[in-house]
Amino acid sequence: MTSTIKRLAILGSTGSIGQQTLEVVRAFPHRFRVIGLAAGKNIDLLARQVSEFRPRLVYFQDGKSGQGLPDVNCEFLPPEGIASHPQVDTVIIATSGKSGLLPLVAAVKSGKEIALANKESLVAAGKIITGEARLSKARILPLDSEHSAIWQCLNGENQKPARLVLTASGGPFLHYSKARLSKVTIEQALKHPSWQMGRKVTIDSATLMNKGLEVIEAHWLFDMPFESINVLIHPQSIVHSLVEFIDGSVKAQLGYPDMRLPIQYALSYPERLPNPNLPRLNWDIMGNLTFGQADLDAFPCLRLAIEAGKKGGTYPAVLCAADEIAVDLFLSRRIKFTDIACLVEQVLGEHQTVACPTLDEIIAADTWAREMVSRFVSGDSLC
Amino acid sequence: MTSTIKRLAILGSTGSIGQQTLEVVRAFPHRFRVIGLAAGKNIDLLARQVSEFRPRLVYFQDGKSGQGLPDVNCEFLPPEGIASHPQVDTVIIATSGKSGLLPLVAAVKSGKEIALANKESLVAAGKIITGEARLSKARILPLDSEHSAIWQCLNGENQKPARLVLTASGGPFLHYSKARLSKVTIEQALKHPSWQMGRKVTIDSATLMNKGLEVIEAHWLFDMPFESINVLIHPQSIVHSLVEFIDGSVKAQLGYPDMRLPIQYALSYPERLPNPNLPRLNWDIMGNLTFGQADLDAFPCLRLAIEAGKKGGTYPAVLCAADEIAVDLFLSRRIKFTDIACLVEQVLGEHQTVACPTLDEIIAADTWAREMVSRFVSGDSLC
Repeated sequence: MTSTIKRLAILGSTGSIGQQTLEVVRAFPHRFRVIGLAAGKNIDLLARQVSEFRPRLVYFQDGKSGQGLPDVNCEFLPPEGIASHPQVDTVIIATSGKSGLLPLVAAVKSGKEIALANKESLVAAGKIITGEARLSKARILPLDSEHSAIWQCLNGENQKPARLVLTASGGPFLHYSKARLSKVTIEQALKHPSWQMGRKVTIDSATLMNKGLEVIEAHWLFDMPFESINVLIHPQSIVHSLVEFIDGSVKAQLGYPDMRLPIQYALSYPERLPNPNLPRLNWDIMGNLTFGQADLDAFPCLRLAIEAGKKGGTYPAVLCAADEIAVDLFLSRRIKFTDIACLVEQVLGEHQTVACPTLDEIIAADTWAREMVSRFVSGDSLC
Repeated sequence: MTSTIKRLAILGSTGSIGQQTLEVVRAFPHRFRVIGLAAGKNIDLLARQVSEFRPRLVYFQDGKSGQGLPDVNCEFLPPEGIASHPQVDTVIIATSGKSGLLPLVAAVKSGKEIALANKESLVAAGKIITGEARLSKARILPLDSEHSAIWQCLNGENQKPARLVLTASGGPFLHYSKARLSKVTIEQALKHPSWQMGRKVTIDSATLMNKGLEVIEAHWLFDMPFESINVLIHPQSIVHSLVEFIDGSVKAQLGYPDMRLPIQYALSYPERLPNPNLPRLNWDIMGNLTFGQADLDAFPCLRLAIEAGKKGGTYPAVLCAADEIAVDLFLSRRIKFTDIACLVEQVLGEHQTVACPTLDEIIAADTWAREMVSRFVSGDSLC
């Protein structure tokens, strides 16, 4: 067991993944040291985190430097500055939506080890980011439970697998018809049956957009063609994903739906750490696992995402941006649940893609998509 | 991809595992070369195998050298001579019962790579064999689907796992009561619901003795305490076994019940080879997997084996020998199905164990146990 302390920067430290990352850090104070914390809106929680972990680098989106934070000796830097700071070994990117993109690019260019929970950034700019990572030797480690499962199954395997199978809980509306989906409420959509997560990803899970984004993420993380990435509905969220190898052998990774396990694995890799706070699988649960196919007709977001991923160019960036705004609109009760897919499809339909886009072109496509959603909504051209 | 040809000796080439090993060899003629073949009773099949694969070394138990075999230029050697022959890289030990022990010892002492299907030899003499393997740098690779699954899950993991979970189909008599078990026929016992195997292992699967032997085998192969090896009933035989790591993460290996996959994996390790003859898992099957606990009351062999394994000494050798004879007696219609466990328990009850036995003491205990079974049966002291 190595005794090197890993120096961490956590972007999105007050969110669900950020807080659980700090739980892991708390369990292993001799293994991890928090160097940087960045948060968006929750100044009270950030202040408590700063008091407890005494980071050198801090960022708070909605405030001026230091305001509302305890009187500690911190340097105030933007997320990109924290992500590329020389004192940081590993950057945990746990922000939601578009906000992860520039810090991810900065971390990749600095050759950092990156534990990535923000899938949108890789979806929007996967080609640029993986290309930069090859040059800088940055390592992108997955935090998503599905990609962590695949990564764990690939451990020790030196050949490209034949197929990846991402499992999906199906969300709270599994087996709902289109008609029934059009009437679901925010409260119902936010009640995920197996995972406790942030609001954006919880709604994305309910539409299956989240699984579509994960397919694109898997495509970039594991350099696999879309044709070799499948989705399997598994409501209990115990089997986190599966990998089929070229000899037909299949490996799966299992565990309770608890993000602390993939977070800890990414931080401690290649070692595993014994953490008494992490639950052990009770084998009785194995008797109740079910699996099935996704209903692409009732949940068009999954299909839209895979199509956008296959088309490439700026389509995935437009997909992410349109979805982010549409989810916001749903959460502020301005559109119906089924309007999310509808809006995303309309915006994708209007988009003129740029092949092999630069980062600026990706950001421009993102901006365009956000404006288009607003235009569709204000123009009352919903489905 | 390396182009080195691996030179194989197959002991038990006319049995189920032997024939399937030759199927794998046939699929990759540029990777594997058959140097030695050894068989027990099926001279016709051995003759065909000798014609096809032209081994240099041959053994036939029931015949004199060369008699009944095609007129090829072979050297006739006993199994131990083939197993330790300098021209052999990998020895596949696919014989049944006691006959695997001396060839395994010979192969281990010669520092060979050994693909082991004969679990009884490792059960009876695990301490000696693993000790010798450490000295000679022999590598024992599992052929059993369960142990291959564990080995595949351990691939790339550098720490000892927390727990191994061997799955068991439960055999043809899953959920049978003791009373119902006492009336089952040989024909019923030989009809395994998921695996096509040799007669001895099929009966051992029906009594769950096979799973007990596998627990002991896993103890030696993976250096794990018995307390950390569990058994889980899984009638579909798709999940071949599971490993729990110290962080609570669990990995499982899946595939159809087809021995060619673990055989090929052992032969090609660390590489995997694409074999169009091996079936790909249809994900629809995932919807029908069930798991449960073993009934140790109705199937006492599993308990007897684990107890013998824990006690150590010559108990495991006695367990194997008593079971081998009892299964023979059942197959020749001289005892009932439930008498198998009963005889094994009686013989174990009479045994005076030798702690840290030598190979001779293990063989003596084996001989003693075989005589005791016969004595119990002829004395009509069945349960």
